[in-house]
Amino acid sequence: MLDIKVEMTKTPKELPSADNPLKFGTIFTDHMFIMNYEEGKGWINPRVVPYQPISLEPSAMVFHYGQEMFEGLKAYKTEDGRTLLFRPNKNAERTNRTNRRICIPEIPIEDFVQAVKTVVKIDEAWIPTKPGTSLYIRPFIIATDPFLGVRPSHSYMFMIILSPVGPYYPEGLNPVKIWIEDEYVRAVKGGIGEAKTGGNYVASLRSQVKAHDEGYSQVMWLDGVDRKYIEEVGAMNIFFKINGTLITPLLTGSILPGVTRDSVIQVCKEWGLAVEERRISIDEIYEAYQNGTLEEVFGTGTAAVISPVGGLRWGDQIMQVQDGGIGPVSQKLYDTLTGIQLGRIEDTHNWTVEV
Amino acid sequence: MLDIKVEMTKTPKELPSADNPLKFGTIFTDHMFIMNYEEGKGWINPRVVPYQPISLEPSAMVFHYGQEMFEGLKAYKTEDGRTLLFRPNKNAERTNRTNRRICIPEIPIEDFVQAVKTVVKIDEAWIPTKPGTSLYIRPFIIATDPFLGVRPSHSYMFMIILSPVGPYYPEGLNPVKIWIEDEYVRAVKGGIGEAKTGGNYVASLRSQVKAHDEGYSQVMWLDGVDRKYIEEVGAMNIFFKINGTLITPLLTGSILPGVTRDSVIQVCKEWGLAVEERRISIDEIYEAYQNGTLEEVFGTGTAAVISPVGGLRWGDQIMQVQDGGIGPVSQKLYDTLTGIQLGRIEDTHNWTVEV
Repeated sequence: MLDIKVEMTKTPKELPSADNPLKFGTIFTDHMFIMNYEEGKGWINPRVVPYQPISLEPSAMVFHYGQEMFEGLKAYKTEDGRTLLFRPNKNAERTNRTNRRICIPEIPIEDFVQAVKTVVKIDEAWIPTKPGTSLYIRPFIIATDPFLGVRPSHSYMFMIILSPVGPYYPEGLNPVKIWIEDEYVRAVKGGIGEAKTGGNYVASLRSQVKAHDEGYSQVMWLDGVDRKYIEEVGAMNIFFKINGTLITPLLTGSILPGVTRDSVIQVCKEWGLAVEERRISIDEIYEAYQNGTLEEVFGTGTAAVISPVGGLRWGDQIMQVQDGGIGPVSQKLYDTLTGIQLGRIEDTHNWTVEV
Repeated sequence: MLDIKVEMTKTPKELPSADNPLKFGTIFTDHMFIMNYEEGKGWINPRVVPYQPISLEPSAMVFHYGQEMFEGLKAYKTEDGRTLLFRPNKNAERTNRTNRRICIPEIPIEDFVQAVKTVVKIDEAWIPTKPGTSLYIRPFIIATDPFLGVRPSHSYMFMIILSPVGPYYPEGLNPVKIWIEDEYVRAVKGGIGEAKTGGNYVASLRSQVKAHDEGYSQVMWLDGVDRKYIEEVGAMNIFFKINGTLITPLLTGSILPGVTRDSVIQVCKEWGLAVEERRISIDEIYEAYQNGTLEEVFGTGTAAVISPVGGLRWGDQIMQVQDGGIGPVSQKLYDTLTGIQLGRIEDTHNWTVEV
């Protein structure tokens, strides 16, 4: 149990007007959580302080060797005024999986969750209530040793910042078009692909720019070895419904183990849908498209929850899915998961945690 | 030509005593160079200011998505008191190659070199003069947009910090033992391996810790696809002398294009040595070791210049090279390159640049 000191802001900001649509990740609340790590002392000095800039040495290792990790989860306001988190333990577990891969000291799961709950509670008034809105929670860790040699840092900062966000798609659930990348690679088995660390995101930027220029909103990655097995999409995991079966790539080490991905697999199995976690090649997708069995494609992630895919572009081939619209499984999953998150649907899995 | 404003420190630090051995990357000089990038304005406000912490929003993109790059080069003091840089244009060119890969705006080569020269000149008194010492120069760029969406930042800071450093090996040229990594992968073709960005270094930490625990000072990486072709070593490129021929891995996109690597290839060709840039597998190395034709192995990099390799460990196999000592080509290259860098040997390539 952390002994979290709290310093409240003396200059609270104005809450965003409910009339203006919230953009993703641009507005931050009044407070943030910080905890330091020092070798020999462990994680120390947990505190909530006013949201403010941080000061670091120019030689801080995070600026040079990318030793940094982050998580993303959301807090929702229910109609009866409760604040719910969705499976925060999974983010805490994944934090430690990332940390092990990139040599950052682990954080006890209960401390992680306590820290999230504490800062969310303090800035609870910032949780927006319009349909589709939520409070995005961004825990992250950076390496702070002022040292230019390459080795794991001996000191770190763990921080949690909060940002009220609107619906991922302003008009609600909206199919996206996806560009299948066959030149660049995001990650490879044996690398850091399954860790939630900056290096995987910086690797994606150039493809993302190319895809945007071509009118596609996301990039689908193929594996780095055979260059044909589907890995993941931008900031999402990906599912294909082919001939009645839901297929999603197996977690082989280069794919982020998504919390929404895991939830979707559980829910669909309970619905009696056949779900396969296995390697699936772009050729298999294209074959299913050609013979008319590619029924649905959707992405899963914290930001959009479920993101129906209306079209895929692979080289010169354009595959339209569900006539570019929203498939029934995508819609039902979106309604179910957001229903649980907002406390409208009974939470039979004990996924939600009240703040 | 940059119009660089200079603000001199009012509280200069004490120069490190010539009696104490300098460690790598722990002491920094009195000043640093900063230049900002803003979309629509380009690179603006170039300045030299007192070395000091930097203040960033917790949401600055560098902390989350790893959009950061760095370079490394050195300034040397010659016996007649001149200050020399070694091929700074190559670092400027590589900066822009990195920047293109990770969507950071390019910096004109002459501006990069001017910035390096300016700040080195101001802190010239910090360049140590003992044998084997130098002033390590660390240019780096970080993404500063306060935004949690994944896209290239619209604002950046380019900084140059300086650190007086001792000889990489306190006792002079000293053979290292290298661990060949067959579980983890540093980079893969199509990824960011050839870019000098944090993501490649964070990916290396876990293997490095494992190798150190086993008594090895560096890790040798195999390729991410076939898991058998040599890529590079820790912070160095790698050369093998087999049966009279010098072989170094071809730059296929996942290997850092080292400035010292390039210089070694040129010098050896001029000496009449056969030099091959090609794919070379660990099996070929092991076969050469077994039949007695593995004559020398050495790494090349800015930090150590030439680093002789005395032993390689590959799974259960231990290969000793040059009876664990320094080979004649390694020694001659070290003497030649450091001789040029220190102005003791005629610089027929125009590699050195006077500050």
